[in-house]
Amino acid sequence: MLSLAELARISGAALEGDGSRLIFGVATLKLATPEQISFFTNKRYRADLASTAAAAVILAPDQRDAYSGNRIVSDNPYLAFARISAALNPEFSADVGIHPAAVVDSTALLHESVSVAATATVGAGASIAEGCVIGPGASIAAGVEIGANCRISSRAVLLERTRLGQRCRIGAGAVLGSSGFGFANDAGRWVPVPQLGGVLLGDDVDVGSNTTVDRGALEDTILERGVKLDNQIQIAHGVVVGEDTAIAACVGISGSTHIGKRCTVAGGVGFVGHLEIADDVHITGMSMVMRSILKAGVYSGYPSTTNSDWRKNTARFQKLDQLARRVITLERELNQINQAESSVDDK
Amino acid sequence: MLSLAELARISGAALEGDGSRLIFGVATLKLATPEQISFFTNKRYRADLASTAAAAVILAPDQRDAYSGNRIVSDNPYLAFARISAALNPEFSADVGIHPAAVVDSTALLHESVSVAATATVGAGASIAEGCVIGPGASIAAGVEIGANCRISSRAVLLERTRLGQRCRIGAGAVLGSSGFGFANDAGRWVPVPQLGGVLLGDDVDVGSNTTVDRGALEDTILERGVKLDNQIQIAHGVVVGEDTAIAACVGISGSTHIGKRCTVAGGVGFVGHLEIADDVHITGMSMVMRSILKAGVYSGYPSTTNSDWRKNTARFQKLDQLARRVITLERELNQINQAESSVDDK
Amino acid sequence: MLSLAELARISGAALEGDGSRLIFGVATLKLATPEQISFFTNKRYRADLASTAAAAVILAPDQRDAYSGNRIVSDNPYLAFARISAALNPEFSADVGIHPAAVVDSTALLHESVSVAATATVGAGASIAEGCVIGPGASIAAGVEIGANCRISSRAVLLERTRLGQRCRIGAGAVLGSSGFGFANDAGRWVPVPQLGGVLLGDDVDVGSNTTVDRGALEDTILERGVKLDNQIQIAHGVVVGEDTAIAACVGISGSTHIGKRCTVAGGVGFVGHLEIADDVHITGMSMVMRSILKAGVYSGYPSTTNSDWRKNTARFQKLDQLARRVITLERELNQINQAESSVDDK
Repeated sequence: MLSLAELARISGAALEGDGSRLIFGVATLKLATPEQISFFTNKRYRADLASTAAAAVILAPDQRDAYSGNRIVSDNPYLAFARISAALNPEFSADVGIHPAAVVDSTALLHESVSVAATATVGAGASIAEGCVIGPGASIAAGVEIGANCRISSRAVLLERTRLGQRCRIGAGAVLGSSGFGFANDAGRWVPVPQLGGVLLGDDVDVGSNTTVDRGALEDTILERGVKLDNQIQIAHGVVVGEDTAIAACVGISGSTHIGKRCTVAGGVGFVGHLEIADDVHITGMSMVMRSILKAGVYSGYPSTTNSDWRKNTARFQKLDQLARRVITLERELNQINQAESSVDDK
Repeated sequence: MLSLAELARISGAALEGDGSRLIFGVATLKLATPEQISFFTNKRYRADLASTAAAAVILAPDQRDAYSGNRIVSDNPYLAFARISAALNPEFSADVGIHPAAVVDSTALLHESVSVAATATVGAGASIAEGCVIGPGASIAAGVEIGANCRISSRAVLLERTRLGQRCRIGAGAVLGSSGFGFANDAGRWVPVPQLGGVLLGDDVDVGSNTTVDRGALEDTILERGVKLDNQIQIAHGVVVGEDTAIAACVGISGSTHIGKRCTVAGGVGFVGHLEIADDVHITGMSMVMRSILKAGVYSGYPSTTNSDWRKNTARFQKLDQLARRVITLERELNQINQAESSVDDK
Repeated sequence: MLSLAELARISGAALEGDGSRLIFGVATLKLATPEQISFFTNKRYRADLASTAAAAVILAPDQRDAYSGNRIVSDNPYLAFARISAALNPEFSADVGIHPAAVVDSTALLHESVSVAATATVGAGASIAEGCVIGPGASIAAGVEIGANCRISSRAVLLERTRLGQRCRIGAGAVLGSSGFGFANDAGRWVPVPQLGGVLLGDDVDVGSNTTVDRGALEDTILERGVKLDNQIQIAHGVVVGEDTAIAACVGISGSTHIGKRCTVAGGVGFVGHLEIADDVHITGMSMVMRSILKAGVYSGYPSTTNSDWRKNTARFQKLDQLARRVITLERELNQINQAESSVDDK
């Protein structure tokens, strides 16, 4: 529970209204009670704004007049909401210490503030810094290094040669450091190529549940600071994802492809290997990226092109049957003209 | 082992033949022995029907004359087969009780009939109703509620704020209740938005192996009664899937999309967020659904349209190079006509 | 550490240079030190070849003149590299024996050379042959059979009726033997069909992390000798994958589809069910295979056709908007001609 004045301060936004009003939580405009704060960022919910019972609403300056109650006014109302919600909903704190049913190798180095849940395993020589929380059944292999204040969720697997920065969050069932898919062909049979690199995560990297990140073949697979990966993503050996790039679920990135900084990749996109993707590239859902992208912008399609080209061509595809019929009509008409001409010539 | 008469009664179908014949199992027409029953639902196996050694065959009334042996005749022969096979192949019964190598919090509420396998973990305040089977290494977080007769397979993870109805089956490695992928952008950096909702499953919901279902941002993610999810599916925060909808493997559904009742979604389909999909909608494989679908029917494509439009346009696409060449020919011919005309004019 | 002469012998390639030179590891041309060996197989790295500090380079006979240092010359330099790297980087050897925190049923049959890590579970009657390594938290169900020298990584799950040949490698979080997705429809509700088959892996099969392989409905799901599966793949019930076929990440194969021998399937491809795919078929990324493929070759597209057709049609699609505009121009011009003709006729 915090006062509106405190929440305004925490969010760095302007308060317009009763700063002493106490707020107990957050909710949608529609469901908020008079003890909760809500936010307005999507015009499709304008009707809800008019009828909300919320104690206060977070909104942008140009929407200020649409609501007469207590307001938190911010140029980035969704960011203000994120901060206010985090203040009102602190992450649960795990029990500090090693659960008796966890299995921690005697040579592992764990800060005394670390929490290790039941049936988690920590291998020889692994190091886990202060404030980390290791969930039930998580598996930390020998030699893995985990920076301060990371959260490793249930059943996540961090294999050999994986190193994490600070404040990383690894989802349940995620696997970091599995062997890359590398084989040489010997007269039709596949011979595995040893995968000798590691997996390196910068600070503030999130990895979603059941996402997989292979270790590199010869060089590390790298997720730079601030990278956010959703669930069910596959990152192959030797991929590099640049700072602050966010990747939605079910994306697959093939080996040695490098993605730039501040990119966004929508769900289900695939990249072939050995590509270079520039900074500030945005790729829409289920695109297949077959060539390097050297210029910031929005890209789409199968295979991908600029979004504007893809939109135009796709609109035409949706009427391709009609177009083909129009070509048939043209052919028939032209044929008639040609026949008429030849009959004229014959005269 | 059951008699044909008993199997006919269990399946609600008509027996034609020797009801006292004892049946020990089910098999395909091709592999069935004289102790087994088989079924005929796909005309491509008509030759196998003629030569089968099965003790009896389940088939539809209009196929009755194609087989002269013992018959179970049903308007829905595959359903009759499902019931007969279930009667002949009861699910294995797990040992009742908590394995000594399971870790169950003392405040969890487990019915005495529950089975908890080795290395499974059950958190504080979780409740598990009668007849549930919790597999090896499954992880049930604090406060999770599980209805009667659910089966949670090996290494499945049920995180905080997950609630299951009765008779749900959760596949190995599935994750329910992971944090949704929600971030606000702060001058290029991603700030996590607390994900405060839960995951709610109705009765008779199946979730496949390694499928992930995120908890909601502000409201619950919901799989209604009878929903069937295959493997490797991603369900984002705030999605609602309606009763009796079946979704095949590798599908991704983005945040806040609502799918209707009795829909079928084939493998690899993707949905963008915030869509409304009507009841009785059927979507074919690998389609990308970018807009709400307000009418029952079959839809296909990238992006999706009606299946009939997609089929027509795709058939044209398969000959697009030819079509382009025909346009070039038309242009050349028209150019010749125009030149001829202008040369006529010049005369 | 091995001498160049020994490495040449191990790789079956020709040595040109100082056979007594000692090699301590492998690296890329760019990063190799004078204690390491590198390889040259991709012309894009020709500049690195000129400047490498490596002790020796593995390359093809026709590239021999491009490098004047110690050479290992092979017709298949990447294969020679794979063998040399394996010799220099032996797989870590796990501690033999059963960790006290593993849970092995008293009726399971484990060879004395087997390694079972902490929190792994092995069910009743399972058998594990010599040299196998079972990782932390892996779950081996009752009756599972594992051939010699297999490696089961952390948290992998092998369910009932799964049998493995020799030297298989199962990735972290992979699930073998989960229930296939089979239901009969009873007036709108789904009734599960018992899934009675198993999962059978030949020798030398690799399964990637978080990949899922369902057990068959009535017959086994089969991965033949030498099959290589990458991460995040879904193999449905009754699928058969032929010898030495390699499948990249995020592929989904629907029920009862049979894939031939020596095929390659790129990332994100989907197959509908009940198809027959011939030997030596190669399918490019994110294709959707809707029909059987009876002839060796390269196939692509949504839905898939021959790669050459797909390339031509896709190139046209990338200019489809232009094509449509050209058709509009043709229609306008033809209309003018027709009007001119009719006005001539009117005269």
